Amino acid sequence: MDEFELIDQIFQRPEGSASQVAIGIGDDGAVINVTAGKQAVVVMDTLVADVHFLESQPADSIGHRALAVNLSDIAAMGAVPRWATLSLTLSEVNEDWLNGFAHGFFELAGRHEVALIGGDTTAGPLAVCVTVGGEVEAEGVLRRAGAQPGDFVYLSGRIGGAAAALSSNEGYADPVLHRALCWPQPRTELGSALGRVANSAVDISDGLLADLNHILNASGGLGAEIEADSLPLFESAVALLGPQAALELALGGGDDYELCFTAPQSRHQEILETGHRLGQDLFRIGQITEHGGCRVRGTAIDLDAISPGYQHTWPSSIS
Amino acid sequence: MDEFELIDQIFQRPEGSASQVAIGIGDDGAVINVTAGKQAVVVMDTLVADVHFLESQPADSIGHRALAVNLSDIAAMGAVPRWATLSLTLSEVNEDWLNGFAHGFFELAGRHEVALIGGDTTAGPLAVCVTVGGEVEAEGVLRRAGAQPGDFVYLSGRIGGAAAALSSNEGYADPVLHRALCWPQPRTELGSALGRVANSAVDISDGLLADLNHILNASGGLGAEIEADSLPLFESAVALLGPQAALELALGGGDDYELCFTAPQSRHQEILETGHRLGQDLFRIGQITEHGGCRVRGTAIDLDAISPGYQHTWPSSIS
Repeated sequence: MDEFELIDQIFQRPEGSASQVAIGIGDDGAVINVTAGKQAVVVMDTLVADVHFLESQPADSIGHRALAVNLSDIAAMGAVPRWATLSLTLSEVNEDWLNGFAHGFFELAGRHEVALIGGDTTAGPLAVCVTVGGEVEAEGVLRRAGAQPGDFVYLSGRIGGAAAALSSNEGYADPVLHRALCWPQPRTELGSALGRVANSAVDISDGLLADLNHILNASGGLGAEIEADSLPLFESAVALLGPQAALELALGGGDDYELCFTAPQSRHQEILETGHRLGQDLFRIGQITEHGGCRVRGTAIDLDAISPGYQHTWPSSIS
Repeated sequence: MDEFELIDQIFQRPEGSASQVAIGIGDDGAVINVTAGKQAVVVMDTLVADVHFLESQPADSIGHRALAVNLSDIAAMGAVPRWATLSLTLSEVNEDWLNGFAHGFFELAGRHEVALIGGDTTAGPLAVCVTVGGEVEAEGVLRRAGAQPGDFVYLSGRIGGAAAALSSNEGYADPVLHRALCWPQPRTELGSALGRVANSAVDISDGLLADLNHILNASGGLGAEIEADSLPLFESAVALLGPQAALELALGGGDDYELCFTAPQSRHQEILETGHRLGQDLFRIGQITEHGGCRVRGTAIDLDAISPGYQHTWPSSIS
């Protein structure tokens, strides 16, 4: 099977509800109708085998993850995803693996009404690069900049689960932690709903402290006080690793793909209602301050000892 | 140097004339203003070391090439390029290499007024993935479909040079052939000018016969008669390899990144004037027929023996 047949057979699917696609896969490029009055949002993320996923991981979870991490960035911008391009670098053409990968990719794409419009397939060490485009009204864009002293800080879900799954074979075998690692759920509905309520947002890929610091720096060098007791941890992580280690992984682990966002205290009720309307758990975890970087209250952890973000190393020993 | 500092230092540049960029590098995604009444065009291409370029090649030519092959696809759609995202997978952080790569990338981007709006940097085997977005009016889109029997077939420049450079150390050392291989020039001005004159187009990445076949198939199973004597070959390739081998590489070699397009005979004068106005050589190489696949007249070559497109193997022996 050559690369063209492979693309045809596995990745060329009916465009479904994607009425914005004028020309999809099969020409030199894709053509997309744009919505009058909206801005385009573009994100791109590459996943390399044994750096961003385990080559031994089920193929469908790799396809899911490659799209999910990009949809998470779209959500963090307050946009609605519309299209994706996929570049797949394969060391071998394994049809079962490809079908699994495609299943995971398209299942998530379908749920978010994202059309695969193009890309390419290449021989080389296994890696996946995805670009996603979305749309947003200018007033609904969520930047990292925009937080103000006094704002509440929120999380869209529990954190530290992916890192806990990577911390040991027991963690990887735990179904809840495994799901957090391999099947992250991008918060696109929440992101676009927050566009006019929240005043800054980031998605947690590098770890809460590192990503919240992006907000603090982009917003002009603010600080934040996080309440350790308010941090939503995974019960399995606490049971497996103890509360202290679970907390450290929540603060520094990364790969969570939850949204961290800020909003004025006056919008708190609106934030809660938005979460309730979408069936989305939201956790208030602290408050923005004028200075002082990111501090965690109610814990004896040495913050300096926590990894400042994602280190690009997945353990090769996990199976 | 970690990946964030690296991105900051080398890839975050003033946006220059790119007035369409509302938010560039540094947030979770980029935000772009879209032009009312235009459609968006998106293309994506990945280059893997020693598959699509030689790791020993000058870094600036790799940066150039990674963007050029994408701009060539944009040209083949009749669009004007606007923005690019870049994903760089690096086996090591070599600042000289990165500066060289960035120089080649930004020099070409600047000439085409393309803004780098995002992407990522990843640890792994050397590879480059680029997505480019452009704009086009619906009436100006160039598809592969649209050729008609009787149309003339054109090329935007000489072909077979890249393949001749890869055929031997002497070819690689020849300055003209080396330039054809390492510094392909995307025909974006021509592509967007042809939008309302030509009726089909493709860019030559896989080889003239393979890519012209894409037009013939997309246009409903037409044929084409190519005049071997009209094919614009590189003099150095003919001198080095002989006319027969140079012709074979022109037909089947690929990596040319010239446009192959068709237009009704009635538009021939207009096509010539377009080329003249842009200072762009254009070559009429044959004619579309009703049936019969792609035939080459005036040559004794066995077409079946010619590689049907790009085989994804660059010789590792060239230095």
